Amino acid sequence: MPYYIGDVIQDEKKLIARTPEKFRAGGIDVRIQERVAGVDPAGGAVELADGRKLPYDILVMATGTSAFVPDLPGLDLPGVVSLRNLEDAIAIKARLREKQARRVVIVGGGFIGLEMCESLAAANIATTIIHKDPLPANRWDAALAQEMAGELRTHGVEFIGGASARAVEEGKSAPLCVVTDQGNFEGDLVLLAIGVRPDSTLARATGLKIGASGAIAVDFSQRTSIENIFAAGDCCESFHRVSRRWVNVPLGDIANKQGRVAGRNIGGKPMLFEGIVGAQSFRLFGLECAATGLSEREAAAAGFSPVSNITWGSAMAPALGMRKIGLKLTADRATGRLLGAQAVGAAGAVGRINALSVALWSELDLAAVGWLDLAYSPPFSPSWDIIHNAAQALGRML
Amino acid sequence: MPYYIGDVIQDEKKLIARTPEKFRAGGIDVRIQERVAGVDPAGGAVELADGRKLPYDILVMATGTSAFVPDLPGLDLPGVVSLRNLEDAIAIKARLREKQARRVVIVGGGFIGLEMCESLAAANIATTIIHKDPLPANRWDAALAQEMAGELRTHGVEFIGGASARAVEEGKSAPLCVVTDQGNFEGDLVLLAIGVRPDSTLARATGLKIGASGAIAVDFSQRTSIENIFAAGDCCESFHRVSRRWVNVPLGDIANKQGRVAGRNIGGKPMLFEGIVGAQSFRLFGLECAATGLSEREAAAAGFSPVSNITWGSAMAPALGMRKIGLKLTADRATGRLLGAQAVGAAGAVGRINALSVALWSELDLAAVGWLDLAYSPPFSPSWDIIHNAAQALGRML
Repeated sequence: MPYYIGDVIQDEKKLIARTPEKFRAGGIDVRIQERVAGVDPAGGAVELADGRKLPYDILVMATGTSAFVPDLPGLDLPGVVSLRNLEDAIAIKARLREKQARRVVIVGGGFIGLEMCESLAAANIATTIIHKDPLPANRWDAALAQEMAGELRTHGVEFIGGASARAVEEGKSAPLCVVTDQGNFEGDLVLLAIGVRPDSTLARATGLKIGASGAIAVDFSQRTSIENIFAAGDCCESFHRVSRRWVNVPLGDIANKQGRVAGRNIGGKPMLFEGIVGAQSFRLFGLECAATGLSEREAAAAGFSPVSNITWGSAMAPALGMRKIGLKLTADRATGRLLGAQAVGAAGAVGRINALSVALWSELDLAAVGWLDLAYSPPFSPSWDIIHNAAQALGRML
Repeated sequence: MPYYIGDVIQDEKKLIARTPEKFRAGGIDVRIQERVAGVDPAGGAVELADGRKLPYDILVMATGTSAFVPDLPGLDLPGVVSLRNLEDAIAIKARLREKQARRVVIVGGGFIGLEMCESLAAANIATTIIHKDPLPANRWDAALAQEMAGELRTHGVEFIGGASARAVEEGKSAPLCVVTDQGNFEGDLVLLAIGVRPDSTLARATGLKIGASGAIAVDFSQRTSIENIFAAGDCCESFHRVSRRWVNVPLGDIANKQGRVAGRNIGGKPMLFEGIVGAQSFRLFGLECAATGLSEREAAAAGFSPVSNITWGSAMAPALGMRKIGLKLTADRATGRLLGAQAVGAAGAVGRINALSVALWSELDLAAVGWLDLAYSPPFSPSWDIIHNAAQALGRML
């Protein structure tokens, strides 16, 4: 049951205020809307914008990401926004309500832009997506991204692929207009969703080591290059168990895990964060989209010889009906080891990618993946699951 | 969209006839409704009921299961049936249509009985289940089976637990009546669904080694104790990777795998069937029910020291709504290794059990399972999935 965007704004503002109050009730000094100007690691103190100093024994960097903002004229017009945190979301909802918005133009067809379409559609607001590549969701195989494009069409989302935004201007029929090389697109609000960058500004100024990804370098304890400074969340790196490299994957579940590991180590109950395999998902109207491991390009960059296939099938037994699902597998030609997977389907894509994420975690090869024991019954899979078919077919290509 | 049971009977009869025709068109001698009276392994021939002999170089036993039939008076009454194969299903549908059936009494509340309720409900036929234990689905933890019992109630299925059937008689208001120690239950058809046994009669008579499970013993090539006789499917055993024992798990996906392995070995492309972990699932109206690995009892019998917990949560982020899911994990107290899992939920139970099946396949311990990288996004899980919460909580109990 879609509710009108804006109904809950007052509640959300109260919610935001309540969290610091709870911590304060527990004797913890929580300061919000307080800017940190710098860190003095030698002296062990944080300097606030007004010059005051807060001493620390241990410091945790949890600066998250900042939205990547392109260099376009007109970005200062009211109603041109990015979405990074809850305050941004509240401001967006407030404007949509105030303007009785009918259409939003989203610049960027990555998964945040795609997820936004669905939320807006639930509030009866139409969407135009301006995307630089011909198909949405860049990291995805074209055949699977094509499914997403079809789902957008089905739900009335206007997807303008291969388009470059040139400027934002005042519109004629709506307050704002995004000027692109493919034409002009008007709306009540323009959302910039072209990606995020780890916010490592303060970390750099503090002298912390920054990884090749641009995020803060940490060890398996979430400790940075300075012993009493930890980092956790979107601002820092994680160890990728498939590529064996340190990467920045700004996702909420990883941030939670890193926070728990940092907290344990700070609290004197040491533990290591064993890393990630790159599992992720989003829903696009009636489609489940999920991926894990390395794309072919990432696999090649990590020194593997990737070989891939795409298999189409049904997420349920044909006797019960068809729920179309596509599965891409990537493996290492030399060893047969599974390196990555992407799935898009009407059902069962997330569950299958989770199973394959555990296979990546355990470094299984195609010979094992093709014969895994999975929980078959007709409402949930054919007797040979698409995972089996895909892995056996790819195994024959090695 | 439920269709009236019986509509497709004629099509199904044609379908059954078509399969042998296809094989015959390929030059394969297919004989149906032909009874094998015995096998002469020394002479390399199969003896048919009429005395004819069919010579073979290699024989495959694929005798499946037979339905376990209790010793009750009245089982010879018309309309008392079991469900083992497609012919049985067609006969059941024909009778339901002919009698314009309003209610079916099912003896046995295992997963076949439960699945039948849903098919019957889709055809607007009410169901009574007579089950010997207080809760359905015996192998399942009581707390999860309670969820199933609730789902049955919600959908108007009459579940009579802790009841023993004494006889089947002619009914007063309906053609048949099941007499139990908890009262009499009338219906248009009585379905016996109290389990199946591997059909190893012919194998025993042939002198093949029979395993402790009562099914035909095979090696990893699907070869029986006689070199040129293979076996595949419900009639034979599989190697259970968790208990390290040979077991009989009569499920369609396992049968398919065994058939392919047997075929490869017979065809001269050797391969081994690496075994099972006990993954299985069924749908009960709006509930996904899935399990994998060992129950506590099976774990203890296999020499482990099982420790278990049950965790309740949501299959989606609380901000988006609640989709209740319960997850039972069983691990080995000595090593922390995961041994089994059961899940029941409105969504996501099968996907999670598949992920845990891969964890079992790879012999992961709770320390790994509690920190697996899974494809988080709010429509599909909270940022800490119930798998993480359950495994971390059980890890603290070791």
